[in-house]
Amino acid sequence: MNNVKTSVLKFGGTSVKNLGRIQHVAEIIRDRLRIGSEDQQKILVVVSAMGDTTDYLLKLGVQCSRSPDKRELDSLLSTGEQISITLLALTLKEMGISARSFTAPQIGIFTEKVHSKARIVDINSDNLNRALVDHDVLVVAGFQGVTADGDITTLGRGGSDTTACALAAAINADVCDIYTDVDGIYTADPNVISEAKLLKRVSYGEVIEMARLGAQVLHPRAVELARQYKVRLRVRNTFKPEHEGTIIDQGANEGEKVEIYRSISGVAVDKDQACVTIMNVPDKPGIAGTIMQALADNNIVIDMIMQAFHPTAGHNNITFTVHSTDLAQTITVLEAIKGDFSATAVIADEDIAKVSLIGAGLAGQSGIAATVFKAFGAAGINIKMIATSEMKLTCVVSGKDADKASKIMHSSFSDD
Amino acid sequence: MNNVKTSVLKFGGTSVKNLGRIQHVAEIIRDRLRIGSEDQQKILVVVSAMGDTTDYLLKLGVQCSRSPDKRELDSLLSTGEQISITLLALTLKEMGISARSFTAPQIGIFTEKVHSKARIVDINSDNLNRALVDHDVLVVAGFQGVTADGDITTLGRGGSDTTACALAAAINADVCDIYTDVDGIYTADPNVISEAKLLKRVSYGEVIEMARLGAQVLHPRAVELARQYKVRLRVRNTFKPEHEGTIIDQGANEGEKVEIYRSISGVAVDKDQACVTIMNVPDKPGIAGTIMQALADNNIVIDMIMQAFHPTAGHNNITFTVHSTDLAQTITVLEAIKGDFSATAVIADEDIAKVSLIGAGLAGQSGIAATVFKAFGAAGINIKMIATSEMKLTCVVSGKDADKASKIMHSSFSDD
Repeated sequence: MNNVKTSVLKFGGTSVKNLGRIQHVAEIIRDRLRIGSEDQQKILVVVSAMGDTTDYLLKLGVQCSRSPDKRELDSLLSTGEQISITLLALTLKEMGISARSFTAPQIGIFTEKVHSKARIVDINSDNLNRALVDHDVLVVAGFQGVTADGDITTLGRGGSDTTACALAAAINADVCDIYTDVDGIYTADPNVISEAKLLKRVSYGEVIEMARLGAQVLHPRAVELARQYKVRLRVRNTFKPEHEGTIIDQGANEGEKVEIYRSISGVAVDKDQACVTIMNVPDKPGIAGTIMQALADNNIVIDMIMQAFHPTAGHNNITFTVHSTDLAQTITVLEAIKGDFSATAVIADEDIAKVSLIGAGLAGQSGIAATVFKAFGAAGINIKMIATSEMKLTCVVSGKDADKASKIMHSSFSDD
Repeated sequence: MNNVKTSVLKFGGTSVKNLGRIQHVAEIIRDRLRIGSEDQQKILVVVSAMGDTTDYLLKLGVQCSRSPDKRELDSLLSTGEQISITLLALTLKEMGISARSFTAPQIGIFTEKVHSKARIVDINSDNLNRALVDHDVLVVAGFQGVTADGDITTLGRGGSDTTACALAAAINADVCDIYTDVDGIYTADPNVISEAKLLKRVSYGEVIEMARLGAQVLHPRAVELARQYKVRLRVRNTFKPEHEGTIIDQGANEGEKVEIYRSISGVAVDKDQACVTIMNVPDKPGIAGTIMQALADNNIVIDMIMQAFHPTAGHNNITFTVHSTDLAQTITVLEAIKGDFSATAVIADEDIAKVSLIGAGLAGQSGIAATVFKAFGAAGINIKMIATSEMKLTCVVSGKDADKASKIMHSSFSDD
C-alpha cells in the first residue's frame, strides 16, 4: 500500500433500508473520498442487509423447518448482505466512483466452523490491499464469513460491526466509523432517560461493558477486536454525517486529564434475557462443570450465574442468564441431561431485564452500589441477581421494572 | 461412486414459486429417492430462483444504475437461487432426508469471464461425487457460475437447464429430468394451436432447433450439452409427476423404426426478436466482418442475417435479427462504428416474430416450403426474411401475424 489513508465505514440495516437511503450512503462515501484533493482517501465500506431483510429470510427459513439446519440458514441469511453490497456498488458506479462489491468468500473473511455465531479467525489482507489498489471503494458484506471448506457462516448479532473492526485491523485503517441511526454513545438510552448525555469520547473497556450489558450501540466482540488491534472507532449518525459522534479509543493516557473520563460512563438495559434455574442439583464437584460444558457444546453463552446452596438438603439450585433466543435450546439441552445428576426440574423466567451501571472508576466508589440498592428498595424494585466487576454493577430485575430501575441508576450518578 | 443410480432433477421458477410449491417439489424428490427399496437413488436437484425473484432483483439493480455493471448485477441476481436452494434443503431436511445446498462457487461450476451469459468451462466432479457419498440429495443453484477469480457469473436465459445438463454430464447421471409447468414438448404452442400434439420422444437436434427458434421449453445450449455428453433428457410436468413427459435422446438408431420420428416435429414461435438494418454499407470486403466482430466483442449474438445488394449503387443493406434484450446495446455499438465505413443509418424493427417449422426430415421435403409460402401469401402474411437449414424453415414476419403464421405452418403438415 502507498500512503493513501484508508477509512472503514460501516452502515447498518436502517442506514440502507431502501434505495433512497442507499443513495444517501453513497453520497456520504463520495464526500469522504475527497476525490481530487490532496487528502484523497480510499474507503472500505461494510454494509448490513437492507432493513428487515434478515428477519424476513429467517421467517422463510423457519417456515420450511421448525428447527432449521444452521448451515443452510446461514447461507440463506447471507444473501441479505449480498443484495445490499451489490446495490450500493451499482449506485457508487453510477456516480462515477470506482467501486466493487465483495462477499465474505470473495474477499476471504475466514471463520471457525460454527454456524449462526462464528468468530473470524483470519482475513486475507493481501486480497484487500490488492483490491484497494484497483478501486477507490470496496463494498464488503458484513455479518458473514466462510469456513476453510467454503461453507458460509454468519457472525451473530452485531456481526457487521465485527466485520468492520476486523477489516480495519487487517488493513491498518486510519479510522473505523460505525454509522448508525443515533448521534453516538449516550450515558443511557435517551429514549428512556431524557437526561442521558452524549459522550464525546469513551474507552474500549467501558463500551464493551455497556454493550455486553445491553446498550445496543456496538457489539462487545467488535469493540474487543478494535481494542486488541488499536483500531480508532467512531460512532456516528448516518442522517447527520456532519456530526463527529463518539470517539472510542484506549482512554486517557497516563498523566493526561480528560474531562469525559468520569468514574461512571453510563447505564445499559438488556431486556432480551432469560433466567434458567436447575433445581436440586446434588452438591458434588464437577456437576456445574458438566452443565456448563453441555451448554458450551451447543454454543450457548451463559452470562450471570448464581448458585444457591441449601446446607440442610445438600442440594444446589443453579441459576443463570442466557440470551432470549437461546432459551428454547438451553431448556432442551438441560432436560436431556438433568437425569444424569438427578436434578428435579428446569425452570425458566423470560420476563427479566439486566440493568447495569458502567464506569471505569466504579471500583473505587463502593458507595454507589449502596445508593443504588437503597433507591431500588425505596422504589419497590426487587433485585433477582447481582453481579459486579471492576467496571460494572449489574442487577437482574423484572422486565416491568427495567425502565424505572435504569432511571434510578442514571440519576444516582447524574451531575445535575 | 458405487453403483447407486443418480438422477438430476431440475425445477424452474414456477415450480418453486412459493413455500407450498417448494414443499411439493420436496415430495417429488422424496418419492424419487425410493428410500429403503432395492432401487434407492441419489438425487442432484437444480433449482431456479423463486417465481419472479430474478425480475424483482433486476428491477432493483436497474433503479440503482441505468446501465448496471454486469459483474455486480450477476452477484445480485445469484442471490435468488441461493435463497431457493437453502429453502428447499431446509424443507428436505425437515422431512428427514439427508440434503445439502450448494451455490455454484461452493460446488465448483466454473465459467468463462463473461457476465450475464457465461458459458460453463469446467465442473468439479470430485466435489460432486464426494458430496453424493455423504448426502442423498444435493441441491445446487442453477443459472450461476463462478470464474477462476471468484467472481459470480450468470448463464443467461435458460441457465438452470444448462446447469442441470452440465451436472448430469459431470456425474454421468442416469437421467436428467427437466420439471416444468407443461406436460412435455409439443409440436407447437398448445396455447396458440389447439391441435398441437405432445411428443413422446424427440431427438436432441430437433429440440435444439425448436428452442433456438423460440419454443420456450428448453434452452438450446442446454440441449447441445446433453447431446455432446449423451445425457438422457426428459421434460416433465411438476404438477403431474406421474406423467412420463417427453424423452429427448439421440433419435432413432439405424434400422430402428420409431413412429414418432416424423419428418416434421413442430412449429416454434419467437416474439422476443428484433431486426436491425445498417443502411448503405459500401460493398467492400471485410466490412461485414468488422460489424459482426464489434457485436461479438459485446457478447451480442446475431441470428439470421441478410445482405441486400443494390448493384447500381454499389451499396449493401445488412439486416440481421437479435434478441430484443440486446437491441439497445446493438444500436449503441453500431452507431459508434457506422462512421468508420460511411453507413448512412441504423434502423431497428422491434415488431417482428420468427416462425419456424422444425423436422429432422425437412430437407427431403422441398414441397413443404412451397406449401407454406403459398399459404402465407393467401393469408396476406408478408415474409420479411427467410432462412432454411437441413432441419428447419424460418420466416420472419410482423409481430401481429405471428400466431396466424404458426397456425398455417402447423396445419400444413398436420396428419389430421
